[in-house]
Amino acid sequence: MIAHALGGLAHLAGPRSLGAAAGQVLAAALLVLGLAGAALADPLPSWNAGETKSRITAFVEAVTDPASADFVPRAERVAVFDNDGTLWAEKPLYFQALFAFDLLKQRAAADPSILTSDTLKAAAAGDLETVLAGGVEALLEVVNASHAGLSVADFQAASRDWLETALHPETGRPFVAHVYQPMLELLRFLRDEGFATFIVSGGGIHFIRAYAEDAYGIPPRQVIGTVAESAYERVDGVPTIVKKPGIAFLDDKAGKPVGIDRVIGRRPILAFGNSDGDFEMLEWVTGGQGARLGLLLHHTDDAREWAYDRESHVGKLVRGLDEAETRGWRLVDMARDWKTVFPERE
Amino acid sequence: MIAHALGGLAHLAGPRSLGAAAGQVLAAALLVLGLAGAALADPLPSWNAGETKSRITAFVEAVTDPASADFVPRAERVAVFDNDGTLWAEKPLYFQALFAFDLLKQRAAADPSILTSDTLKAAAAGDLETVLAGGVEALLEVVNASHAGLSVADFQAASRDWLETALHPETGRPFVAHVYQPMLELLRFLRDEGFATFIVSGGGIHFIRAYAEDAYGIPPRQVIGTVAESAYERVDGVPTIVKKPGIAFLDDKAGKPVGIDRVIGRRPILAFGNSDGDFEMLEWVTGGQGARLGLLLHHTDDAREWAYDRESHVGKLVRGLDEAETRGWRLVDMARDWKTVFPERE
Repeated sequence: MIAHALGGLAHLAGPRSLGAAAGQVLAAALLVLGLAGAALADPLPSWNAGETKSRITAFVEAVTDPASADFVPRAERVAVFDNDGTLWAEKPLYFQALFAFDLLKQRAAADPSILTSDTLKAAAAGDLETVLAGGVEALLEVVNASHAGLSVADFQAASRDWLETALHPETGRPFVAHVYQPMLELLRFLRDEGFATFIVSGGGIHFIRAYAEDAYGIPPRQVIGTVAESAYERVDGVPTIVKKPGIAFLDDKAGKPVGIDRVIGRRPILAFGNSDGDFEMLEWVTGGQGARLGLLLHHTDDAREWAYDRESHVGKLVRGLDEAETRGWRLVDMARDWKTVFPERE
Repeated sequence: MIAHALGGLAHLAGPRSLGAAAGQVLAAALLVLGLAGAALADPLPSWNAGETKSRITAFVEAVTDPASADFVPRAERVAVFDNDGTLWAEKPLYFQALFAFDLLKQRAAADPSILTSDTLKAAAAGDLETVLAGGVEALLEVVNASHAGLSVADFQAASRDWLETALHPETGRPFVAHVYQPMLELLRFLRDEGFATFIVSGGGIHFIRAYAEDAYGIPPRQVIGTVAESAYERVDGVPTIVKKPGIAFLDDKAGKPVGIDRVIGRRPILAFGNSDGDFEMLEWVTGGQGARLGLLLHHTDDAREWAYDRESHVGKLVRGLDEAETRGWRLVDMARDWKTVFPERE
């Protein structure tokens, strides 16, 4: 069949005088054939064969096959992904928090007066222990103090600079090397099948957007996350969006379905998370009518990544472990289900 | 050229045994040819020839021609449109406010205790004058009281029901009959040229999303607007997003660029508004580097629509009129620039 079609294409591709219209036809046709060819190969080569992989591929087949009772029109194929611990690693601490420590230190070197509390002084001194002892509030204080006052453009330039130069304290590799190869394949597979893929993260939108397009192929407008206060100002006469202290929207737990409703305005049909911060998102997504898929990544692989769940201070997973089965959600076991964890080193 | 390409297509379309791959090729090819054919016709038939139409078409040509110095990649072609008074009419009052009056009356019939103030009692009695005398605050109070407590799903069902049955108090036609035909053409033209078209409105996101896809071809996720408080709850055990009293985000004036940054995360290259509520949005969009287009619809047509600007209580336009020329923004004169205002009656 494909050879026959290619014969027709060769005819189309003939003389250069065919012009722009035919050239566009050819480009469109080659794209279609390219996709058809790719579909013959395994779209998820880093996923081991088994129940998890089968559930994912069966779900995608069911919602994309027009003859299926579970068919979902393209415009409604929305998939949402948590970021930290789902699309990339989150140990020893959310990478944005590590960035905030470095940024605070750098900004305090220029202006020590920004260190207005013991927490901030500890953070600027690199004293992780003290900050962590203060819990989420202390962490938010550091993130806020380090980010506020910068324009969005300057903040994102600083984020990119850090992502290009800073190294993970345990692996010694750049942070973007800790994206999960199987998840990159899943994102691409879903997009090839007509899904829109969104990030729905407790992390800050401006930080995630600094790398999500390059790292995941997810454009800025498909990043939902925690929103810091910001304002429109003329800085030296130049129209600018400036980050301000305080949180306008916390995209975690019950905030996740709210954030999805506010930005997407439609209930997704697939949700993938890894912690109890994703519980309500999975509950809401899988509570809709028709075919739904809820997935939770269980960090079980101390050899290739980190193993943690109930006792971890990041990515704590308790209710998800206890209720996944009764709720019909699939626990993705990293050690069992993933052939590869991180992309090959270049 | 097209005939030649069609020859190639006829070859492709030959035997049915070509199968799915060739069928997809054909479909893609016909789509491309369809678009090529459409491009030969005037994409903006309801716009009169003149400076305004020329500026729009020249801008689109400049940013979409890869050989142009002003070329903008497809992913960065974002256009933002105010809604009330820009995509559809806003007289005698924002249509959402008229809906809020009707909804409040209906809900008060079932439960009079929700009318907790004189403003709300006046609204439920249809006393527009009294509510308007209270300004924007009174209006927000009515909108809030009528919307809060409903699930998003129920609210949108009520919105659609109203839009299908209620009639405009002056024209006697359904409200969606008051979308502007030239703007429908502009939206379609921009999308055909690779733009993503967003609404950025002071109106509420849930109300706009109830009709924007049908009326404008704009999907829910491309609607930015004022956001009421909402929460994720289990209502009788069913996961639900419920509207709450209070405003989480006011998408007006300096809030518009902030809303765009939060949702799109990228500075648009075209902005179209009609009132001083759009001033900062146009300022921010046209303040970026590269080719930019800022447009303001000036309501000058008392015969076919309504004529108003400096003194109006909705769509007030003062700074825009005074500064458009020095800022390089184009004032679109409805009476002069539009051949048609509303779509033909069916």
